[in-house]
Amino acid sequence: MAEDDATGENQDQDRVLVVFTPSGRRRRFAKGTPLLQAARELGVDLDSVCGGRGICGRCQVTVSEGVFPKHGIESRADHLTPHAEHERRYAEKKGALPANRRLGCSAMVVDHVVVDVPPESQVHRQVVRKRPEVRAIDIDPVVKLHYVEVAKPELDKPSGDYQRLCRALEEQWGIAIERTDLEVLQGLQGILKEGRWRVTAAVREGRRLVGLWPGLHDNLYGIAVDVGSTTLACHLCELASGEVLASSGAMNPQIRFGEDLMSRVTYVMMNPGGGAEMTAAVRQAIAALAAEAAREAGIETTDIVEAVLVGNPIMHHLLLGIDPTPLGTAPFALCTDGATTVSANGDLELGLHPGARAYVLPCIAGHVGADTAGVILSEAPHERDDLSLIVDVGTNAEIVLGNRHRLLAASSPTGPAFEGAQISCGQRAAPGAVERVRIDPETLEARIRVIGCEKWSDEPGFAEAVAGIGVNGICGSGIIEAIAEMFLAGIVTADGVIDGAAASRSRRLSASGRTFSYRLWDGPPELIITQNDVRQIQLAKGALYAGARLLMERLGVERVDRIVLAGAFGSNIDGKYAMILGLIPDCDLERVGSAGNAAGTGARIALLNRQARREIEAVVRRVEKVETAVEGTFQEQFIEAMAFPHNSHPFPNLAAAVALPEAAPAKPAQPPRKKRGARRRM
Amino acid sequence: MAEDDATGENQDQDRVLVVFTPSGRRRRFAKGTPLLQAARELGVDLDSVCGGRGICGRCQVTVSEGVFPKHGIESRADHLTPHAEHERRYAEKKGALPANRRLGCSAMVVDHVVVDVPPESQVHRQVVRKRPEVRAIDIDPVVKLHYVEVAKPELDKPSGDYQRLCRALEEQWGIAIERTDLEVLQGLQGILKEGRWRVTAAVREGRRLVGLWPGLHDNLYGIAVDVGSTTLACHLCELASGEVLASSGAMNPQIRFGEDLMSRVTYVMMNPGGGAEMTAAVRQAIAALAAEAAREAGIETTDIVEAVLVGNPIMHHLLLGIDPTPLGTAPFALCTDGATTVSANGDLELGLHPGARAYVLPCIAGHVGADTAGVILSEAPHERDDLSLIVDVGTNAEIVLGNRHRLLAASSPTGPAFEGAQISCGQRAAPGAVERVRIDPETLEARIRVIGCEKWSDEPGFAEAVAGIGVNGICGSGIIEAIAEMFLAGIVTADGVIDGAAASRSRRLSASGRTFSYRLWDGPPELIITQNDVRQIQLAKGALYAGARLLMERLGVERVDRIVLAGAFGSNIDGKYAMILGLIPDCDLERVGSAGNAAGTGARIALLNRQARREIEAVVRRVEKVETAVEGTFQEQFIEAMAFPHNSHPFPNLAAAVALPEAAPAKPAQPPRKKRGARRRM
Repeated sequence: MAEDDATGENQDQDRVLVVFTPSGRRRRFAKGTPLLQAARELGVDLDSVCGGRGICGRCQVTVSEGVFPKHGIESRADHLTPHAEHERRYAEKKGALPANRRLGCSAMVVDHVVVDVPPESQVHRQVVRKRPEVRAIDIDPVVKLHYVEVAKPELDKPSGDYQRLCRALEEQWGIAIERTDLEVLQGLQGILKEGRWRVTAAVREGRRLVGLWPGLHDNLYGIAVDVGSTTLACHLCELASGEVLASSGAMNPQIRFGEDLMSRVTYVMMNPGGGAEMTAAVRQAIAALAAEAAREAGIETTDIVEAVLVGNPIMHHLLLGIDPTPLGTAPFALCTDGATTVSANGDLELGLHPGARAYVLPCIAGHVGADTAGVILSEAPHERDDLSLIVDVGTNAEIVLGNRHRLLAASSPTGPAFEGAQISCGQRAAPGAVERVRIDPETLEARIRVIGCEKWSDEPGFAEAVAGIGVNGICGSGIIEAIAEMFLAGIVTADGVIDGAAASRSRRLSASGRTFSYRLWDGPPELIITQNDVRQIQLAKGALYAGARLLMERLGVERVDRIVLAGAFGSNIDGKYAMILGLIPDCDLERVGSAGNAAGTGARIALLNRQARREIEAVVRRVEKVETAVEGTFQEQFIEAMAFPHNSHPFPNLAAAVALPEAAPAKPAQPPRKKRGARRRM
Repeated sequence: MAEDDATGENQDQDRVLVVFTPSGRRRRFAKGTPLLQAARELGVDLDSVCGGRGICGRCQVTVSEGVFPKHGIESRADHLTPHAEHERRYAEKKGALPANRRLGCSAMVVDHVVVDVPPESQVHRQVVRKRPEVRAIDIDPVVKLHYVEVAKPELDKPSGDYQRLCRALEEQWGIAIERTDLEVLQGLQGILKEGRWRVTAAVREGRRLVGLWPGLHDNLYGIAVDVGSTTLACHLCELASGEVLASSGAMNPQIRFGEDLMSRVTYVMMNPGGGAEMTAAVRQAIAALAAEAAREAGIETTDIVEAVLVGNPIMHHLLLGIDPTPLGTAPFALCTDGATTVSANGDLELGLHPGARAYVLPCIAGHVGADTAGVILSEAPHERDDLSLIVDVGTNAEIVLGNRHRLLAASSPTGPAFEGAQISCGQRAAPGAVERVRIDPETLEARIRVIGCEKWSDEPGFAEAVAGIGVNGICGSGIIEAIAEMFLAGIVTADGVIDGAAASRSRRLSASGRTFSYRLWDGPPELIITQNDVRQIQLAKGALYAGARLLMERLGVERVDRIVLAGAFGSNIDGKYAMILGLIPDCDLERVGSAGNAAGTGARIALLNRQARREIEAVVRRVEKVETAVEGTFQEQFIEAMAFPHNSHPFPNLAAAVALPEAAPAKPAQPPRKKRGARRRM
């Protein structure tokens, strides 16, 4: 009993050593001390909603049996008092406890014991994410539940039921309520009666009473919503565990007012009340998604007490009912670039719990929105020493560059080519869209893969496998691979010209006027890649690359340590092809990865961890905003960046991995037709 | 230059002495210092909404001309710079400034000067009330206006318009905004544009942005509302001056659901949704009163940014949409006894400014409501050394007793007799109701006065004067005087019996079965006072007196120093008659007064002074609540208190002022018919 001999504590025959794992916290306690109390006194993280009344089952612990030389004790299950009434009742209701599992509030120490707190019994548990390079989410939601027993009113000592509830929260949980929603007051007396003076209170930020249920209520939910201009995605999470119980998605119904952002802003300008229409449409759609997710998870929408939303600046403004037209013209002024908390029902009409709040992440600049703030929160470049370049590609590309010392952000007007728009055979990423392309440099024949089918087109059984899907068009990642493979096969020159000389080598090339095109798929339908398609991709990739270079120049760096491709397009493209075409600067290919819907993940982090909100609010304030429209060098970079992969920057990592054709001439053959400046595609 | 020589400051030739009256603050300032700046540096209370930009006209001061030996200087109008451009423009817009009046922000000191700050230019001005014994109201409203010039957005330094507005408030007024209503964000960019980046912000509690107007907006309004069970009264005040601009009143539309409080509670119990109906009815009526007052004052309802409401516990609960049924049965538990702040529109649907809040004063106990809290705030017994007894008489009497050391409150079930109900010829106080009565002790003939006519009935021209009004019934104060005069004339005995012996002396007395009645007015209609009328008043006054005595006993006092009669009934009755009948204990008649609608005044104080809210919240917490229903001695006191004026307590002050008939026997002839306990009239 090495350590404890020193303290002399073991001279006390009535006190036994209690060791908690994994924290390793230990001390002697008087026999008869409940484990929950011991844990609290030691500061061990052991959950409890009911405050030790044996009804919530959150304080479950496991007795470790055996001899523990490190602690100098033998630990046995019978070193705790036998199963108590509470535990029997809990087992009857919720099913038998696993072997050696005990309720910490009921089991009292009789002799030395080692007790393990499993992750699900910790308040401050973590959600580990799939990608090893990103940090886990610490669970610390903004709303928490507390079960209390409220004193009954007495005729000769008049006091409000609400005040007695607050006193109970203060005495039983140390919580000082400062404000309370009127809805809670309106339901208070009925709930106290129904729960026979035992109720569960939902407390927001440790000080605002936002919900009340009779008896024990131990489930609380929240939604994280990515309000994209094309699609809406909603994740329903259990706040205490962080678990995603259900996800739902839908097209953004604002599409009927305009496909892209600029056309929606134009709709508002041209139609009085058009903004309100779009606001109502997106709010209704989010409410429907929340209801759908709740149905799938088998919960009530009124059990959802918190919503976190992200979106680009125009989605952000329309969601909040703010006129987005100032975002359509210089100086692209945001109404607010701070985080916004509003009532989920009263303000946004989302149909959640009456006390639910909606937290909207801060925007960064007129073209860099709360979605990018979500990406930053998810990828946390500001917590790393290495230099991250994060690009979230949509109709605009939001670009973030930096590390723990500095963080820069910009938006670059890539246009919709990466999403398959303005490409002759382009389409959205959907089943039947070509997403992978390989071209044989000898025969110039192509093989493809489409979304929804695992087989390549030259594998046996492909025709049968795609029979129900079809080969319908080319999505963003498909066009990238197609043009990159055309470049590697010598069909496209470094300056982006489909080379007529190749026509002699392959029936797939054909002339159309003064330019040539490449037939990727014989059809039906035929899938053709035209000279104009190549130009559109050049324009898009030039804008993206120029934006990234602009930030690198501003930061004074020539290289980045890692590249993260975020968003739906970013998740589908192969980093190698992105680099071959020069969408992104050179980087170790091992360190080019996809983050998926990082904006939505950021929303989920802000939903599950209240500190994350303070974190992103602070980070956003120190992000250096770079406006491409006013940067003289941007135009220059942009024109230079049109070539494949790039005519003036070396790509050593890429060159080591891929056999690249000879370098392009110093200037591209065809500069873009018009100057692109303050008037942007959005 | 006595004082300043000592400081040696007058050696500085460029500095001149500036003296502000009435504060007397003085110091030397460099020539060219604007008076507003001098006032600020000296801490002189000089108003400004525009922050010294010469447009609001709030910082007007008057130059005092002459030689001031006390300060050792001569002050002259030309010791200030000549009228500036700002002052000329202000005069053009708002009319010429009076002689020697200057705008403090425009006039700069050239030589020694004495400057007077008139009351209307002080921020912390006071509203002096009519009654000399009550304290003035310090103006310090919860919402204040601040004019700011906001920086324009810049393309290369993106920031939210809202954040630039907040920065302007911080830099120009030292205000750190913590939260903002979504409606403000939604209107923000349009208002900034309309005001050309000059706007006026309404800031609540120094930290919440609740309203915004383009350019200079220098008027802000609030309403104080007394939600009575019978009548609603609304006062519209200018928040900066405290001036009441308009008042409106109406019957409480809940009357159609039940005349008295208990029948409204019963309505809720019997009719599902009945509470919501009554809630909607009273809110609509208050909204209509606010609109009416706004119309009368020539302002927009959307300029009303704050509402303060008082009411008894049942009115309080129904207003807030809280089920009042728990208040109908023991233990009469309030949902909340704290002050409640809600959204005036979102929660109460009052149709005011979107950012308006409604503050509802705290209730004290199940029968002592926010109206009594208002009475306490108005009469401030907790600030006095002498002992105040305050009674607010309605269907229940709320009684407050105490001084700065202790404060007690109770409600006593007087029933509706004092309001003219349950009295055979009783009616509400309205034109044509008898309010004053004198009976000749010799002839037993009566003369009367009615509401709406200044003449007594024995004065010439009375018949003509009341021709349009009529003599219709007897109101509460009339019945008190009638019975008191009957007592003084020997028609009623001390134990409350109409004495048949008097019938021989006057044709006005007549028998009806075993009892007698007194014909007060020959009619039409005849106004008769019956034996039962006397009994009803005995019951009511017995309850009131017993309540007051209960509190006096609890406090251990036999005497009070002053009595305040509050409420409509309290305003009309003559303290002398109240004492003759023994409604109230003995007291120096000089110190028995009426407070009028003290509850409404309390609401107005809380509207105009934010500290008053903290004050009443704290006072209410320390009020000792006495529940008459559980006090054993109350029943005893009540039975004893039936006699006129009272059979066991001396009334030395009253006896000195009025020739009282002989004392009543030790026990009243007829005790009340049934025990009155937990079941109360409400």
